[in-house]
Formats: sequence, structure tokens, C-alpha cells
Amino acid sequence: MNISIDGRARHCRTVTFDAGRNAVLLIDQRRLPHRFQIAAAADYRATARAIAQMIVRGAGAIGATAAYGLAQGARAFRGNDPAKFSARVQLVYQTLQAARPTAVDPVNAMNTVLRSMRAGTTVPEQQALALAAAEEFAGEDVRHCAAIGRHGKKLIRSGANILTHCNAGWLAFVDIGSATAPLYAAQQAGKKFHVFCDETRPRCQGATLTAWELAGQNISHQVISDSAAGHLMQRGEIDLVIVGSDRVLGRTGEAANKIGTYALAVVARRHRIPFYVAMPLSTLDWTLRSGRAIPIEERDEAEVLGVWGAGRGGGGPVYVRVANPSSGARNPAFDVTPPELITGFITPEGIFKPRALWKNRHRLGLRVSTPHKRGENPPNR
Amino acid sequence: MNISIDGRARHCRTVTFDAGRNAVLLIDQRRLPHRFQIAAAADYRATARAIAQMIVRGAGAIGATAAYGLAQGARAFRGNDPAKFSARVQLVYQTLQAARPTAVDPVNAMNTVLRSMRAGTTVPEQQALALAAAEEFAGEDVRHCAAIGRHGKKLIRSGANILTHCNAGWLAFVDIGSATAPLYAAQQAGKKFHVFCDETRPRCQGATLTAWELAGQNISHQVISDSAAGHLMQRGEIDLVIVGSDRVLGRTGEAANKIGTYALAVVARRHRIPFYVAMPLSTLDWTLRSGRAIPIEERDEAEVLGVWGAGRGGGGPVYVRVANPSSGARNPAFDVTPPELITGFITPEGIFKPRALWKNRHRLGLRVSTPHKRGENPPNR
Repeated sequence: MNISIDGRARHCRTVTFDAGRNAVLLIDQRRLPHRFQIAAAADYRATARAIAQMIVRGAGAIGATAAYGLAQGARAFRGNDPAKFSARVQLVYQTLQAARPTAVDPVNAMNTVLRSMRAGTTVPEQQALALAAAEEFAGEDVRHCAAIGRHGKKLIRSGANILTHCNAGWLAFVDIGSATAPLYAAQQAGKKFHVFCDETRPRCQGATLTAWELAGQNISHQVISDSAAGHLMQRGEIDLVIVGSDRVLGRTGEAANKIGTYALAVVARRHRIPFYVAMPLSTLDWTLRSGRAIPIEERDEAEVLGVWGAGRGGGGPVYVRVANPSSGARNPAFDVTPPELITGFITPEGIFKPRALWKNRHRLGLRVSTPHKRGENPPNR
Repeated sequence: MNISIDGRARHCRTVTFDAGRNAVLLIDQRRLPHRFQIAAAADYRATARAIAQMIVRGAGAIGATAAYGLAQGARAFRGNDPAKFSARVQLVYQTLQAARPTAVDPVNAMNTVLRSMRAGTTVPEQQALALAAAEEFAGEDVRHCAAIGRHGKKLIRSGANILTHCNAGWLAFVDIGSATAPLYAAQQAGKKFHVFCDETRPRCQGATLTAWELAGQNISHQVISDSAAGHLMQRGEIDLVIVGSDRVLGRTGEAANKIGTYALAVVARRHRIPFYVAMPLSTLDWTLRSGRAIPIEERDEAEVLGVWGAGRGGGGPVYVRVANPSSGARNPAFDVTPPELITGFITPEGIFKPRALWKNRHRLGLRVSTPHKRGENPPNR
């Protein structure tokens, strides 16, 4: 998307690769919205750290980062010994995967790169193929998100008030985003609308990242407490809900997403407000048979007991404790919304009702680009 | 309730009066949970400022504060001229009312004091009657909350997980609290249970005040993001919800309470989790005929865009900006829960279904202590 830097509009992807410096370039999301800064990861270990430390986050974005990181590590290899090269690539793969062990996107992305490399015989050939495959992976992420926008913009009428939760924006992908794609496409089509951003406690990605994105694109928006969404629905002030997802079960139509999504869907249904989940095809999980099988990550209680806010002088975020010092917290990070509460899934292939995902599995699954295969193991593991 | 100060348990009301110094003593709630401090308001203007600046907040607590403030202003009058005395009392009344203009509790409380004063003829007699009436008002608040506890504790079985929202604790009243009263009574009856405190954005009274209260009483509890409540309900981890209320419509059974209450009630109903509203009788509004007529206060957007956390060294709270600097916010502070989502109201007179309030209006209304009359105008206005 375009961002304004020193008064000049500049197009910017969340993740890019500088082939000359062999560096992965990342928007440093820990510093947003208080400071815009591009972090350069100079080697694959730095790229892995960037994932682990949440300089980059979001399904598509960490997938592309891992793909670039694998190419980066392969390209840094000096020599022509294929066996040594292969061992190095495996080390890079494992280092990057360990940076966010529960995520499936880095694995899918790196498997894509590995398969492309097999077409080469010499080390330099494979190095070149690795980078090309990583670029292709990132490009596919962008095309998928753009297609989500084309399909999703039809849901947005001028004058609509739209609610979103957390950040499924271009910061979570390489560009455009999933839940935000229909917004950006509708804006380009000349529609006027207003977005309510749930602040999305505890990490406040709505108040920080989504609000920053929308402000940068001049989309009318306001931040609300997560608790206010139900009241606004009750008062008729929300016409449409669009959220992203961390995992959609293709067999059941259940969607795992940031904590709070489920309650939004329950209240939206009470008021007959359309509730859509936007997702690229890589979010689909065709293996699990029940949402109860999705592990719900419980994160550090410090996230709930305090908050990261702006440091002095607009510097990087600082943590402040909010809660009673002697109290603890529970911090489930995700919840699962059942299919009967989801009006439809906005995908690159069109909009599908939850029960239609399985019927259309070949159309939806085959497009996970043939080299992707969910759950595939890395080489030699 | 008892609090531990320097290792010694000490009984402490939220609001008390020091007759010797003619001062209103208040737990400074702006500094909690980071610092426990009693603020002394040395004259009625300081008492009014304490209400306006939210040193004291909560329906019962500001009612008692206003009652004491009126007595304080009356007692500070020097002289014996009844006309001048009456003019001074009116000025005090108006000053205290203006400190929280939308609240009804200070008006009810001060009207009680005024009526008691009429039994006196001389200025000293009326001054003495004013203080006695204020003490009686505070005592009635305590007795009402204790009665809520006696009735409500029956709802709590050992091993239960109970959710509460915001702070309807003893800090919001003179002592014991409304939503917390059943918890304290059940604890005294030897029951063991666990409380989830919604942090209650934006002002986080759950994370700060309720968690501090429960920690002080050694009640097992954890803070959660408001968004996590729905997920815990879905997973069967919540057995009972008890909240307070800012206004209950006796004619319809609707309850206005802190923003977020409505969505909790919607999700609780989906999972058939009992949802109770605890209230003293002074919370009942017998005049309004629809919850749509309840004005929903929209507060400063800064509350949503940032948060107050602990200052360095555990000092008073400091504000930090969280949201994107160029974004604004909506901040509705309350919402209205319809009767069909409320299992029952826990009152000093027993537990009533929403539709039973009106049928029992004489029993419930007459106990608003005869001198109270909701909506009565102050003298000469």
C-alpha cells in the first residue's frame, strides 16, 4: 500500500528482499504506530529473530519472510559442493521454522521454495531458483489478497459502517491484507464508508496497526473498545463485520481468529448483521475435523495485566502495568467461531458459505498452489 | 471491608466522615491499585471536586459522599440566621450536584438529608440532623449491600467460576458492594470459587479496582481481556455471571451498566449461563418506560486511545497513548441489557425476575427509604 514518508506517498510492501545486499527488509511492526521504520535482516539468523521477536507478524507476512529467509540463507552459501549446500539449506529451514513453531505458513512457504530449487542442478542455479520462488510466493500472496478485495468489495455499499477486529491488514500479509482488502478495493471503486476498529486487547493490533493502516489510506475510521461493538450493533450503527482468520477448517466451516471474534459473531447474529471472514487459500486447513481440535494458544499474562504504549517523544513502545500488582490473568489468544454464525468466507476464488467450502475443496485446495501441502514435513525431519 | 495496611488488617469504608475535622474521608480511587491513600476533603468544595475528579466513583459511594458533603457544608456555617443558613445549604447542594450532573444518587442522597433537617428549628439543630441523616444514608447503603450478599450467596456453589464486569464492589458503594456482595457472603459461608474479572476497557476498573478488592479479601481470581469472556463461556469455563447496574428500569426490567455488559449477556444466553444483576433499591428507576430513553454517556476518546498505568516506582497512574496518533475513537460508556437476557436481579429484598420488578414495585419502591424520591428537584430550582 502507499504510505506517506516525509510528505511523499510511497508504495511499500510489508516484506521485501534486497538482492544486492542479500537482506530481508521488514516494516518494524513493534514500533508502529509510533514510528515507521524498515528493519533490514542481514542474514537468515536475523530474519528468524525478526519473526520470533514479532518485528513481522501475520500469516502471509511471516510466510513470505520465511521464504525470503530461506533464499537468503541459500544465497549466502559460498562454494559448489551440493551436499554441503543441502546441509546448509536444511539448517536455515530449521532455524526459520523454530522462530514461530506453531505457525503453518512459514512451513508452507519454505516447502514451496525447496521444491522450486530441485529444478536446479548446480549450487548457483539452485540459489537463483530459491530467490525466484520466494518472490513468486510473495507475489502470490499479493494476488490472493487483491482477489479477496475484488470479491469482497461487492459487500460494501456507500454509507456503510463496517466493523473489523485485530489486524488482518496489509501489515499481516505482503500487501493489501485479507479483511482490509475489500475496504481498499471499495475505496478505489469510489465508495464512501466508515470503519470501526476494535482495539483488540490485549495486544491492541486494531488500535495500533489497523488504525495506522486506515489512516494512511485516508479511510474514515474510529477505534472502539472491544466491549463497545455489541452496543453499536444493538443501536444499528454497524452494517457489516469483516474479520480475518488464523485457520479455517475446510471440513466444518469453523474459523479460528483473534480472541473476541466469537462473541462479535454471536452478537452480530442476534442483530442479523452479516459476518464475513476473509482469507487467502493458505488459511484453509483440510485435515482437522473439529474446531475443538484447534489448539488455543495461552499467551503471557503480562499482555493482559498491562499494555504497550507510546514512549516519550514518540519513541518505541513502553510497557506499563495496569492491573492490580498482586493479581494474575488468563490470556487465551484465539477463539473459534462456528459455521452457523458466519455469513460467508471471502476468498480469492469468490465468496463461499461455510458449508460450501468442503463441496468446493478441489477448487479451493488446488489453488493452495500445487507445491504447498499443509502439514508436509521439512526434509530430513 | 478489611484491607491490609502495613501488615495490619483494618476495616475500611470507601467514604467516611471525620466530625472533629468536619472532613469527608475518601479512598482515593484514582491511585488504586498502585497506591492506597485516604484523601481528606476539608470543605464542601473539595468534596465536590473529589466527585468531579473521580477520587470517588460508583453509585452508592458518590451518593454517600454527597450526603456527607451537604452536612459538611451545613456544619461549616457560622451564625444563627436561618435565612442565611438556608441559602448556604442551597449553594452547597447545587455545588455537589454539579460535580456529577448525570448521576441520580447524589440528588437522592442530598434530598434525604434536607428532609431530615426540616425536623430542626435552630441552625445548630439542623446541622446536627444533617450529619445524622448522612450517617444514616451511608449506613443504609451498607445494610442494602449486606442484604444483597445474603440473597445472592445462594447462587454460588463451591467450585463455581464466576464472571464479573467493571467494579460494582465495595469501592463503588460505602462497603461490601453490589455485584461483589454475594462473593463476600459466599466466602464467609465457607464456599470456594474462582472469579474472572473482565478488565473493563477503557477505564479498566475490573483490572484495577475489582482485582484489588478481591486480592485484598483473598478471593481466587484472574483478570481477563473483555474479549476473552465469550471464549471462556463457550468452553464451559464460566458457570455464573454477576454484574452491577447504573440504572434498572422497574417498569421493563432493562439494566444499564458499563459498556460490554450487553454482549456478555447475549453470549451467556447462548450458553445458558445464569446472568444476574445485583443492585440496591436506589438503582431502580420507576419513571422511564424504555431503555432507549436512557441517555448513553459518550466519554472522552482519550480513554479508548490510551490507558492509565502504573507510574515509575508504583506511583500514581500515568497516561500512555496506545492507538495510532492520528486516529480518533468512539467511547460509549454504558449499554442497556434487555430483560429477556437477565436471569434475575439480586436486591436487598430478594431475587426477582425482570418482569417481577413492576409487580413488586411497592415492596421494592417503598424501601428506597421514604424520603428518597427519584427525580425530585432540588430546592429553589
